[in-house]
Amino acid sequence: MLTVSCYMYQKDEGGYEVMKPYGELGKEELLALKEQLSLQYEEAKGKGLQLDMSRGKPSAEQLDMTMPMMDIFNRDFDMRDEQGVDVRNYGYLEGIIGARRLLGDMLGVDPEHIIVFGTASLSVMYDTVSRSVTHGVMGSTPWCKLDKVKFLCPAPGYDRHFAITEHFGIEMITIPMNADGPDMDLVEEYVKDPAVKGIWCVPMYTNPLGITYSEEVCKRMADLNPAAEDFRIYWDNAYCVHHLYEDKQDTLPEILSMCRANGKEDMVLIFASTSKISFAGAGISCIAASLGNLDWVKKSMTIQIISHDKINQFRHVLYFKDLDGIKEHMKKHAAIMRPKFDLVLETLDRELGGLGIGTWTRPLGGYFISFNSMDGCAKAIVEKCKEAGVTMTGAGATYPYKKDPHDSNIRIAPSYPTLEELKITGELFVLCVKLVSVEKLLENK
Amino acid sequence: MLTVSCYMYQKDEGGYEVMKPYGELGKEELLALKEQLSLQYEEAKGKGLQLDMSRGKPSAEQLDMTMPMMDIFNRDFDMRDEQGVDVRNYGYLEGIIGARRLLGDMLGVDPEHIIVFGTASLSVMYDTVSRSVTHGVMGSTPWCKLDKVKFLCPAPGYDRHFAITEHFGIEMITIPMNADGPDMDLVEEYVKDPAVKGIWCVPMYTNPLGITYSEEVCKRMADLNPAAEDFRIYWDNAYCVHHLYEDKQDTLPEILSMCRANGKEDMVLIFASTSKISFAGAGISCIAASLGNLDWVKKSMTIQIISHDKINQFRHVLYFKDLDGIKEHMKKHAAIMRPKFDLVLETLDRELGGLGIGTWTRPLGGYFISFNSMDGCAKAIVEKCKEAGVTMTGAGATYPYKKDPHDSNIRIAPSYPTLEELKITGELFVLCVKLVSVEKLLENK
Repeated sequence: MLTVSCYMYQKDEGGYEVMKPYGELGKEELLALKEQLSLQYEEAKGKGLQLDMSRGKPSAEQLDMTMPMMDIFNRDFDMRDEQGVDVRNYGYLEGIIGARRLLGDMLGVDPEHIIVFGTASLSVMYDTVSRSVTHGVMGSTPWCKLDKVKFLCPAPGYDRHFAITEHFGIEMITIPMNADGPDMDLVEEYVKDPAVKGIWCVPMYTNPLGITYSEEVCKRMADLNPAAEDFRIYWDNAYCVHHLYEDKQDTLPEILSMCRANGKEDMVLIFASTSKISFAGAGISCIAASLGNLDWVKKSMTIQIISHDKINQFRHVLYFKDLDGIKEHMKKHAAIMRPKFDLVLETLDRELGGLGIGTWTRPLGGYFISFNSMDGCAKAIVEKCKEAGVTMTGAGATYPYKKDPHDSNIRIAPSYPTLEELKITGELFVLCVKLVSVEKLLENK
Repeated sequence: MLTVSCYMYQKDEGGYEVMKPYGELGKEELLALKEQLSLQYEEAKGKGLQLDMSRGKPSAEQLDMTMPMMDIFNRDFDMRDEQGVDVRNYGYLEGIIGARRLLGDMLGVDPEHIIVFGTASLSVMYDTVSRSVTHGVMGSTPWCKLDKVKFLCPAPGYDRHFAITEHFGIEMITIPMNADGPDMDLVEEYVKDPAVKGIWCVPMYTNPLGITYSEEVCKRMADLNPAAEDFRIYWDNAYCVHHLYEDKQDTLPEILSMCRANGKEDMVLIFASTSKISFAGAGISCIAASLGNLDWVKKSMTIQIISHDKINQFRHVLYFKDLDGIKEHMKKHAAIMRPKFDLVLETLDRELGGLGIGTWTRPLGGYFISFNSMDGCAKAIVEKCKEAGVTMTGAGATYPYKKDPHDSNIRIAPSYPTLEELKITGELFVLCVKLVSVEKLLENK
């Protein structure tokens, strides 16, 4: 991940030339700029756009890529897996061995440490928190019996994580993100509080920054000494094979074995799914954890369900075959995603580079580009985009309680629109950034 | 449903002839009988059987029947539903309209009152109880904040229902079952207690009795006046289209509209699935309820999942098409199930009829035959079966806390074994019933 901070000159095709950062412009210059930008904005509004860049949804083109999976079964197919399990019937709570192995290999974890679930790792995480609230963690006091439960929330982060903790009335503590992961000094400090029961992590190509936790951060994470014995690291490895480039890829240490080496293997719960590998709404998901944690999970799971969809598990196993199969498949995703990321970055570089009104990340994988506007501008930018027909992720969504202390972070999700649509949305976005920034700067003139 | 209570004579092919009920035999006769039965039992044990009649699992033959569903999709299939929804992607929390309509028609409920979930209605019920514990019901106090929460449990009933309430520490009150449903006098009495928050019902071809609630029982159910505003009828209509015969079928009134007519439409939550229609482990499930209840469900659901597996929903819609399609399909299930029920009933009639050591139900649908032994014999019978290699549902499993006050009820699940296996298990079962009954009678001689 790199953050653009160099100054560049910009040539506008309309002939207006900005030779310096907006912050250095005088009032007159700003007013003239505002007028010009406003005209452009009104023109854009007139186009009646209806585009969505709000969520990390795969595009239809990406979903098409997995369609051969639909050819695997037919009415005469032998629906017994390698162990003779009839995947159509009840049973095998942990999932079929092939699926446990496939997802285990993807995470670098032994299959016996894997339970395969239904389509959504989000549900697995929700259920894990919910179970902790009602039943406690591996024999500890249920959180609903405690006065206060807190979670550490590295931010900007994944809005749906924060929604889970907020839903259960868990107090969220924002942990700032550095370029190599959460601020571990703060994390180490906060876990001394026995009310702190967990931390949300997207360790690789993190949502929305696109950065990957460094080995040093992972080491410190695996060596935490939380006061609460029921403290868990929620390690949502959602983008573990989601590289954009073949020559430049982040790597992530395997956290379960690192925790085990420290005698703390119960401290981490790993989540993953194929939502952004096979089908967003119909993949398979898993938890990877110590046998102690898995036993705890199964105690409730066996009451909640007889077994998850093993037909879909089997379909995935036969289609991908092994980790190499997944890796090959992910190259095809990258081929679709890369030009989209490139286009957005190119637009940001060209239009905003050097203006001093925003910084953005250049991720090597994942689904998002994270944009930071000048303080106090994000909400207005997203609002302006919406008025002109382009839906962005809500400003603030990447922070606990949807409160971005700087009103600065905007998550850009380039996966779903076509390149043509991205060109339009990208240009509208930079226009809104410019316009809102100018208005902001004028406030103090 | 009929309960066999007539006396019949039995001729044993070994030559021994019982002319009267066991209860009228003298000690000498019983001892002689015991010796003969013990010999037969030892012989049976020597066969090294390994058979399972414990769960309501469809047979491989039944699962084969739905295999044409696997032909529906292929790599070139247009995966957009009638509303243009790409079923492969995220979104549409309530499920696709076709699936809402299909399951709605099956239940006699308008699609707008349906939310479609994943594979298991058990999970939907678990999550509903769990949500009530953590968040309360439509704004009421979360159950985890209450000293005492109670559920009414008509019994014998479905063990997995009781497992859910037990898991959440909810006190279970056993309600005796009559031939037409739960004892409504008792139900009406108990719901005056504000701690009583729900009742578990399998209203049609109930697990394990196979009876269907009468219109009178349904009327009284829909007209309950519970003290608790958050009291809900958990109406698990698992066997709503699961008839065994074409000419003899139970019917069930539609409870949501009955509650609505009484101004109590929020009082009932209906659950169903295709687990025993399409694939036991890979069907689709739903909740049917008032819009108020659905809004309450969605408040948590939208945090828990983005959307359930719409590909599988679409597959079901295209395969079954409509309620007629389901009904035609269920006739094929009946054709497989009927001979199994007949065989078990024939064995029970022939071997135990008139002996006064057991009664059993003759259901017109569903998955179970319910057997009642003499008091204090069920555990021993199941144990004896197990020793000889046949696994039955655990005695007591059909009662809250697995405590059958009479140690009498045994659930017979004839669906999974082949006819040949059923013949063997049936004969072993009646042998064990006889042997244990004789031993019981001898205790008092």
